Amino acid sequence: MNTPEHAVVLLSGGLDSATILALAQGEGYVCHALSFDYGQRHRAELDAAAQLATAQKVVEHRVFHMYLAMFGGSALTDPALQVPETLGVGIPLTYVPARNTIMLSIAMAWAEVLNSRAIFIGVNAVDYSGYPDCRPEYIAAFETMANLATKAGVEGKKLHIHAPLQHLSKAQIIQLGTSLGVDYAMTVSCYQADSAGRACGVCDACRLRREGFHQAEIADPTRYRDPLRGSDL
Amino acid sequence: MNTPEHAVVLLSGGLDSATILALAQGEGYVCHALSFDYGQRHRAELDAAAQLATAQKVVEHRVFHMYLAMFGGSALTDPALQVPETLGVGIPLTYVPARNTIMLSIAMAWAEVLNSRAIFIGVNAVDYSGYPDCRPEYIAAFETMANLATKAGVEGKKLHIHAPLQHLSKAQIIQLGTSLGVDYAMTVSCYQADSAGRACGVCDACRLRREGFHQAEIADPTRYRDPLRGSDL
Repeated sequence: MNTPEHAVVLLSGGLDSATILALAQGEGYVCHALSFDYGQRHRAELDAAAQLATAQKVVEHRVFHMYLAMFGGSALTDPALQVPETLGVGIPLTYVPARNTIMLSIAMAWAEVLNSRAIFIGVNAVDYSGYPDCRPEYIAAFETMANLATKAGVEGKKLHIHAPLQHLSKAQIIQLGTSLGVDYAMTVSCYQADSAGRACGVCDACRLRREGFHQAEIADPTRYRDPLRGSDL
Repeated sequence: MNTPEHAVVLLSGGLDSATILALAQGEGYVCHALSFDYGQRHRAELDAAAQLATAQKVVEHRVFHMYLAMFGGSALTDPALQVPETLGVGIPLTYVPARNTIMLSIAMAWAEVLNSRAIFIGVNAVDYSGYPDCRPEYIAAFETMANLATKAGVEGKKLHIHAPLQHLSKAQIIQLGTSLGVDYAMTVSCYQADSAGRACGVCDACRLRREGFHQAEIADPTRYRDPLRGSDL
């Protein structure tokens, strides 16, 4: 019998990360889930991550604390900036400078200590139209750098950054996760969810999510603060 | 008159980082110094960093807090592992998994918010014989990744990772810094310095530093816990 491989899975508590966790488990990985408390305004996603980790029975779930908000520059961490309620052009104000790079770097540290060669991240096609650090060429460049940075890389044990949702639409992700048994009612995508995890229904993340369920023809289990907004596409 | 460029300088409080700060200032950069409280056992270096930042009159100095020690795997953060007192072969036990990648990533976040295109890091030739993330090919790969990761990179404003000590020996670094007026008495290199910043004299960092002063023919201003060790090469 082969020894199972270990993987570090970035678990934000959103829809995408819940799906990659189920995918990684489906591929036989022993999953170590990693969440970040980085001063984000949508803190309900951390509760969602903890619930998902328990429900999906990961071997361990850790929350890494850091105060990215100290640099400002994003509507997700800077109270002085408002979360946009319409889809704009270019890089959105909700982009957090270097967030994926920082999270992947920390995942890399844990993977190295665990002697794991796999990191799963839920970046996807819908996001990469706006966020530079969701694009396939970015993920590939991170992997190249990671294999030069680490002891494992130097010893020829290649680390692989798995981004299996990269080329899927929100609807396809929802269909995939549903087939894997993910309970999306537990997930929080909203950039300004309230402390009970109820969504605003109007930020970019809410719009993309709701449209995804609609296109996937799967009932949207999201809890909205204002029930009327749930149907207002 | 040109507007001065801003730079983020990784300031650990050691000899190398004090030198790059002086170098960056000499090149006319407005320097934003960044230190990390990551659960390292040699906490005296943080006091040294604060002293250096004041002495070298940086525009601001920030300390980013994170608990890398939570993953273990290094003698610098794991109390269960002893700091080696002889130079070994291969990657030393004092290597902290992904440390430089994590620090550069966080510097990248700050640089992006500051609209700065320069990050200075004091990696050097002596270190890169042992630490994978001190090698020139690693720094180059990080820079490539960074320019795909950021808003600035996407907009064509290239971020440059300056590692000007990369090809210098410890002795050359000390000669350079001395010519720039760096007060090395303020710096702490020892992996197990006491709370007053006094060095052990026997860890790798102490040995490399002492040998550097010796070869540079510059008096070693390091304060040792045991004065006898200072001369015991």
